[in-house]
Amino acid sequence: MRVEILCTGDEILTGKTVNTNYSHMARRLVEVGLGVHWGTTVGDDRESLLKAFHQAGERADAVIVNGGLGPTVDDLSQEVAAQACGVELVLSDYWMTRMTESYARRGRVMPPNNVKQAMLPANAEFIDNPIGTACGFAVTIGKARFFFTPGVPREMRRMLDEQVLPRILAMSGIKGVTRLKRFHTFGIGESRADQMLGDIEAFKEGGGIKLGFQAHYPQLETKLALRADDEPALAALLDPAEAEVRKRLGNFIVAEDEQTIEGVILGKLLAGGFTLALAETVTGGHLAARLAPLAGAERAFRRGIVARDLAELGATSVTPDQAAAVAKAIRASTGASHALVVLLELDEGADRPDMGGKICIGLADATGAVTRQARLIGGRDWVRVGATELGLDCLRRHLLGLPVDERIDFERR
Amino acid sequence: MRVEILCTGDEILTGKTVNTNYSHMARRLVEVGLGVHWGTTVGDDRESLLKAFHQAGERADAVIVNGGLGPTVDDLSQEVAAQACGVELVLSDYWMTRMTESYARRGRVMPPNNVKQAMLPANAEFIDNPIGTACGFAVTIGKARFFFTPGVPREMRRMLDEQVLPRILAMSGIKGVTRLKRFHTFGIGESRADQMLGDIEAFKEGGGIKLGFQAHYPQLETKLALRADDEPALAALLDPAEAEVRKRLGNFIVAEDEQTIEGVILGKLLAGGFTLALAETVTGGHLAARLAPLAGAERAFRRGIVARDLAELGATSVTPDQAAAVAKAIRASTGASHALVVLLELDEGADRPDMGGKICIGLADATGAVTRQARLIGGRDWVRVGATELGLDCLRRHLLGLPVDERIDFERR
Repeated sequence: MRVEILCTGDEILTGKTVNTNYSHMARRLVEVGLGVHWGTTVGDDRESLLKAFHQAGERADAVIVNGGLGPTVDDLSQEVAAQACGVELVLSDYWMTRMTESYARRGRVMPPNNVKQAMLPANAEFIDNPIGTACGFAVTIGKARFFFTPGVPREMRRMLDEQVLPRILAMSGIKGVTRLKRFHTFGIGESRADQMLGDIEAFKEGGGIKLGFQAHYPQLETKLALRADDEPALAALLDPAEAEVRKRLGNFIVAEDEQTIEGVILGKLLAGGFTLALAETVTGGHLAARLAPLAGAERAFRRGIVARDLAELGATSVTPDQAAAVAKAIRASTGASHALVVLLELDEGADRPDMGGKICIGLADATGAVTRQARLIGGRDWVRVGATELGLDCLRRHLLGLPVDERIDFERR
Repeated sequence: MRVEILCTGDEILTGKTVNTNYSHMARRLVEVGLGVHWGTTVGDDRESLLKAFHQAGERADAVIVNGGLGPTVDDLSQEVAAQACGVELVLSDYWMTRMTESYARRGRVMPPNNVKQAMLPANAEFIDNPIGTACGFAVTIGKARFFFTPGVPREMRRMLDEQVLPRILAMSGIKGVTRLKRFHTFGIGESRADQMLGDIEAFKEGGGIKLGFQAHYPQLETKLALRADDEPALAALLDPAEAEVRKRLGNFIVAEDEQTIEGVILGKLLAGGFTLALAETVTGGHLAARLAPLAGAERAFRRGIVARDLAELGATSVTPDQAAAVAKAIRASTGASHALVVLLELDEGADRPDMGGKICIGLADATGAVTRQARLIGGRDWVRVGATELGLDCLRRHLLGLPVDERIDFERR
């Protein structure tokens, strides 16, 4: 089954907007097992749209069209779809009523040009948009079924999952329920994660689960995509594989699914009735910025200190001992139960392949202090981002009672 | 003249990588006056590539192909281009020598599979890549000239500007030199900027300069793209328009071209021999993180303090007076010549259309303290980002001797 994505709109075509809708749709198609075969981008231009519809209709079995359903004159998707089908546009009384009621509920009168959004090709199958004024629809052009979705990302995402993917899956004969299980790790590179997990039977050809990775340095996302006839069958396949991944990636898993490492840390701080003080240098506030703005952090985040000069922190050099001393000192001065200090010293001199930075982390609590030292290789920003994550991960590990000094793939000792 | 962009590679097709190469290429095409007519994405797949080459060759006059020039077996661009042209691949002795020498200079032996990167279609025009092992080339397929570029962004960007755009401009008959002048503003929305500048003669149809905007909230980028026969003619067109834009956008211009607001601030601090202390609340380190990590900031950035509880800063409420008092206090305690305090209070309660936050900024130096109060409307992150920028902009204005309390478009008073 060949599925294509067709993105429309001058903002996308001219590069003014980066096409994240495309990448989201493509990833979801891959995750549910459909894949994606071709991508096309055209502007708000009748001739191009019509040609793109016809060409995709010759190549594909299903086409997801994104954009061009708005109320303004440059939104042409319904009109050109009707032209490609050789039918008229017809007013959807149902959608007119829905839009009018939606405006009325917010105490507003619907602007007249919204009527355009209720005009659908006469042969169209209506596709609901529960959260916007641009309804979707489906028509057949050539040998392909075309599914039209709005350009507003949150509307597109919801309609894709609830309306469009189930229809394409039904067309493909693929049945059952799908699931995407995600693990977020810090400290394992993509190729090593592949080595660590690749020999699990469920991930092999025909094993039933598609293993995938997405690197968002410094974290790696490990994705398990699967489909089964029903929920029990899905659980029977996923549960043992999930347990095996958890065992193998172990302490490097910082969060799962919608969780974040900072959310996990804040949760442990709040659950323990703890408070936190931070001190950092070249990370320059990036460490504090991961935790302090979170909802609920006002109950746990005591103080963050940013200094570029070590003397401001009462230190003289970047060593584990000094990091521990600063951690103890700021714990005492702020009255926090926990203190985290990330000292970072970037290499001086001209750019060269082994450029990097030395990181010393100190963690203090009522029982004393622990430290971690590492060297990361890379440019200024790369090392800064890595040092921030290493600091957060040490705190996470410490709060969870895990060892803080397991070697990570990015470091040289 | 119709120009298309054809992106290749499974990572792009499947959405694993967001296609920022596409948006960069498209923007540059628009900026030099060529525009972009169609975008295609296909995977590392012979059949799709061949079909995409033929279809683009029928539609376009020029096609920029990105990706597929690497040394591995899934990089197919040269091979399929040769197939589409009906010619053989031929070894470029020149590129083999260049690659071998490049490896030798780094004390390494070239891996054997790099030979593949010197195999070009027999009829190809060689296009230099000064910073990588994937050389570019051009061939004609159908009625279009195809320009092949590597997927590595910095290599693509340089080849696009130095090699590909000049060739397409020459084909198009467009002659002369091009320039892109950029202004970065804070506090003016896109539609108001358009109103403020739209009536300048040079920006009107036929006026010679294409005016464009790109919103990167909270900043807006205003772009003047133009072409002229030579540099003097270009200056004659650009200089008065540039002066007029600078006059109209005035104090809201925070930086130009490659400058940043944080770079401008650091420059003023260093030039004046000043030092800076910061205190912030809900912005949670984001303010410090804009300045402290900069190269050179170690000479000016004295200390940043992040607290979620006002009491930690010795304050009791979010008011201009308290912001000024905290600024004076941290200036005294840190010994910095300048102190900036950003207090932010987010609205409580359920999500609603007028949700927002109250911002009070205090700035202290040897002459005393000034304050700024504003209310921004939006979600938690939106207000946080706006408050950070407002704080930076107050400091910039103060250092430049400009009024710190000019109303911005995002605020409600």
